[in-house]
Amino acid sequence: MSTTSRPGRRFTVGRSEDATHPDTIRATISEFLATAIFVFAAEGSVLSLGKLYQDMSTPGGLMAVALAHALALAVAVAVAVNISGGHVNPAITFGALLGGRISLIRALFYWVAQMLGAVAAALLLRLTTGGMRSPGFSLASGVGDWHAVLLEAVMTFGLMYAYYATAIDPKRGSNVATIAPLAIGFLFGANMLAGGPFDGAGMNPARVFGPALVGWRWRHHWVYWLGPFIGSGIAGLLYEYVVIPSADAAPHGGVTHQPLAPEDY
Amino acid sequence: MSTTSRPGRRFTVGRSEDATHPDTIRATISEFLATAIFVFAAEGSVLSLGKLYQDMSTPGGLMAVALAHALALAVAVAVAVNISGGHVNPAITFGALLGGRISLIRALFYWVAQMLGAVAAALLLRLTTGGMRSPGFSLASGVGDWHAVLLEAVMTFGLMYAYYATAIDPKRGSNVATIAPLAIGFLFGANMLAGGPFDGAGMNPARVFGPALVGWRWRHHWVYWLGPFIGSGIAGLLYEYVVIPSADAAPHGGVTHQPLAPEDY
Amino acid sequence: MSTTSRPGRRFTVGRSEDATHPDTIRATISEFLATAIFVFAAEGSVLSLGKLYQDMSTPGGLMAVALAHALALAVAVAVAVNISGGHVNPAITFGALLGGRISLIRALFYWVAQMLGAVAAALLLRLTTGGMRSPGFSLASGVGDWHAVLLEAVMTFGLMYAYYATAIDPKRGSNVATIAPLAIGFLFGANMLAGGPFDGAGMNPARVFGPALVGWRWRHHWVYWLGPFIGSGIAGLLYEYVVIPSADAAPHGGVTHQPLAPEDY
Amino acid sequence: MSTTSRPGRRFTVGRSEDATHPDTIRATISEFLATAIFVFAAEGSVLSLGKLYQDMSTPGGLMAVALAHALALAVAVAVAVNISGGHVNPAITFGALLGGRISLIRALFYWVAQMLGAVAAALLLRLTTGGMRSPGFSLASGVGDWHAVLLEAVMTFGLMYAYYATAIDPKRGSNVATIAPLAIGFLFGANMLAGGPFDGAGMNPARVFGPALVGWRWRHHWVYWLGPFIGSGIAGLLYEYVVIPSADAAPHGGVTHQPLAPEDY
Repeated sequence: MSTTSRPGRRFTVGRSEDATHPDTIRATISEFLATAIFVFAAEGSVLSLGKLYQDMSTPGGLMAVALAHALALAVAVAVAVNISGGHVNPAITFGALLGGRISLIRALFYWVAQMLGAVAAALLLRLTTGGMRSPGFSLASGVGDWHAVLLEAVMTFGLMYAYYATAIDPKRGSNVATIAPLAIGFLFGANMLAGGPFDGAGMNPARVFGPALVGWRWRHHWVYWLGPFIGSGIAGLLYEYVVIPSADAAPHGGVTHQPLAPEDY
Repeated sequence: MSTTSRPGRRFTVGRSEDATHPDTIRATISEFLATAIFVFAAEGSVLSLGKLYQDMSTPGGLMAVALAHALALAVAVAVAVNISGGHVNPAITFGALLGGRISLIRALFYWVAQMLGAVAAALLLRLTTGGMRSPGFSLASGVGDWHAVLLEAVMTFGLMYAYYATAIDPKRGSNVATIAPLAIGFLFGANMLAGGPFDGAGMNPARVFGPALVGWRWRHHWVYWLGPFIGSGIAGLLYEYVVIPSADAAPHGGVTHQPLAPEDY
Repeated sequence: MSTTSRPGRRFTVGRSEDATHPDTIRATISEFLATAIFVFAAEGSVLSLGKLYQDMSTPGGLMAVALAHALALAVAVAVAVNISGGHVNPAITFGALLGGRISLIRALFYWVAQMLGAVAAALLLRLTTGGMRSPGFSLASGVGDWHAVLLEAVMTFGLMYAYYATAIDPKRGSNVATIAPLAIGFLFGANMLAGGPFDGAGMNPARVFGPALVGWRWRHHWVYWLGPFIGSGIAGLLYEYVVIPSADAAPHGGVTHQPLAPEDY
Repeated sequence: MSTTSRPGRRFTVGRSEDATHPDTIRATISEFLATAIFVFAAEGSVLSLGKLYQDMSTPGGLMAVALAHALALAVAVAVAVNISGGHVNPAITFGALLGGRISLIRALFYWVAQMLGAVAAALLLRLTTGGMRSPGFSLASGVGDWHAVLLEAVMTFGLMYAYYATAIDPKRGSNVATIAPLAIGFLFGANMLAGGPFDGAGMNPARVFGPALVGWRWRHHWVYWLGPFIGSGIAGLLYEYVVIPSADAAPHGGVTHQPLAPEDY
């Protein structure tokens, strides 16, 4: 599919054959496995601290958890970026949907795959740790529900902006497969070091949902969906309609608007 | 725009249309957002330690803060490098200005954008943390004002040298978008591990300014402007007029002087 | 050797001249040295904690060991990826064998080289540390043998999946040499932060075998062979026969099935 | 200069004009500045712990120092790799000399530049920290002089092998500028986590020499020259004459012996 001129692309509901297209199925498997790989190490690092009778309330504990998230997310994006675009995060999929980079039907497949991947990882952790229950996400004292929504929104805005700039922006050349995973993983880790002690730093509804379901902890759960979707949605719209368009008017010639849409990887 | 021969390029005041050119506006937005993303995680990691009743005076605390700066700065440069050159630091912009890589009018836009981005991040942190006040930068006992100016100058010299070598040097090929963000972020982190206990390791006047304004702490503030501007200015001049020129005389053929100026990204 | 059509490639026993082919010898040396470099730093970081009268039971100790593994493994893969494919892990070689990416005879050479490399590293550590004995791998209380087998299998599944996606997948372009080492090293580190306190997080039978032989500790040793081989085998088969094939049916043209098999590096 | 056939290249004493060639001068400046940037952050991180009344004898302290070395060395190699080859280490220069990748006269220039860079960094640290004296390198109890020589040799062997494999090996493509700095920096950090508590993990005579001269501490100093030179020399000879040559006999066609010698960067 040519991407240079694609008038019917944005906000499309998706062609009906999308659901059964081999590429969609392969991309869905990819999102499922990559999210599982990410959540296994991410949530595993929290249980690991529990095993050591420690938690995230020391710099060492916070760093261990943030580092596990950063490294594992970089890998998850790296293994999926060429197949599914490497979302591994329902909020990123939402931003890509608002930006017109993915069809609605494909987004639905991704969302289901991401949540199932997170649940699978949480179940495997339960099994392999001999039944440890996830502590779940919670708000620190002095942090209200709406503080946390705003915090999640701001941090996920950054993630989505980084995703757009490094994985979608048409000015990117052949470095996508290297810099995009690093940028997204690194920012997740940095934001966790900043936001962790306040609300646990979710930034990814699937990552929060899997352990929540398996550990059956739903307090404040809506915060970790609403915040990331708001932040990611704003970033997607902003990048797509404000940052990219002027590239078409670039006077330097050469670079024209040729998005590397996830579907076309 | 051809960059091979550009006699009027250096130290130019800038074409009058620069200010309203779509590229300038887009680059300014890019600097604003990238600086905000950086400062949010960077200053956030300091507040985060405060929330844990810890500070930077242990190796763990110092490392958590240095890691947050390193990772977030790498991302900030990565998301902006293709659009604005990825300065996200008024001192880097100053070095690029002295090296003739950016016009004065464009530099002014960048400086305002970087400071506004840092202030926006500091305000969002104030809101999302339920009103925590930034501890600000300070000098350790035994470290005089001019020690700190020199320390800031030396550390920022390294940053600007790394920026020139990885993002501007014409010998760089297509790896700019990957190695430049990593080099700049990594050196920021390493310098912070070295200089943090002495003067907080600013190396970026905007990063210091945002929390200073919101937390209203101005003690020694001038140190974090003067030092970085001196170091970055010297590095810019040295690289532009000593390290690059001999490339023109390279006997190996092939490589001629074709700077990838930030404006041409 | 053309790789586009190679009907007799999969599950081949290997041409008889493989064993004496200069490339096989060179690749075997490469696996030997890269595994030795990895195990020296990896096991060395454990002994290093011992020297400090510390162990992996604090977040700081766990992180130091995980970081050493992550960094050293990334380097080991980086130095070998262009010569031998950069397995440095008998489980990865097993997955590549099941996926038909390496002949049996070559796999045998790799296995011997990896184990000898790990033994050499363990011997050198014994010498240079003045005779320190490796503490070896053990299962935490509450973690049964089969829990550990499952944990090792899950974690090594991730490693092999990452290896396939970043080093073998035909959709990868020229970034293999950069992203594959980082992805594999990073995931090893992240999984260690998750699984370390439960079973030490082997994920690499050679890395476990070398210190076990030199320190003569064989308790639960089979766990660290069975688990990784199961996980890696499943990942190899899954990626080769489910994730890659549909690429052949890609409607976007251009990309056809051209694996960069390790033998052809 | 064509590098395909160069019979007089290996072990050459250097053309007499090497010393005054603009490229040699530029490369020498590059080595001086890159080494200074590395040593400033590396030794600075040690003084920084001193300022916090801590040392490398806890996992946190060891990790802070190892991380500073890893990040700063990656940057030092990155800024110099395109200009001087990015040695920033007399032992690497020695290995490259034995491998015939650099002329003797150029090696002499590099050695002087690296040592001056380290001294300059140590002097600047003395000034900016208000006169702190470097603790220097020392051997732990139970570690004899020759244990330390062997440890240094093994660790520096790894470094040189990584340098050859990622920066010189003719099979490397365009990724040199990205993976070489990361591989060398990462391995330095990993080896430090392993060897730090035993002998401080020098692996770079210039990095040890600068602070030793300024702090005037010479105990065991010879260990940190002899060990690295032995390890690096063996690695250089091994890679040049065992690992690379068989590439010429590669039956896959295409890849011929075209070293990217540092002089030709």
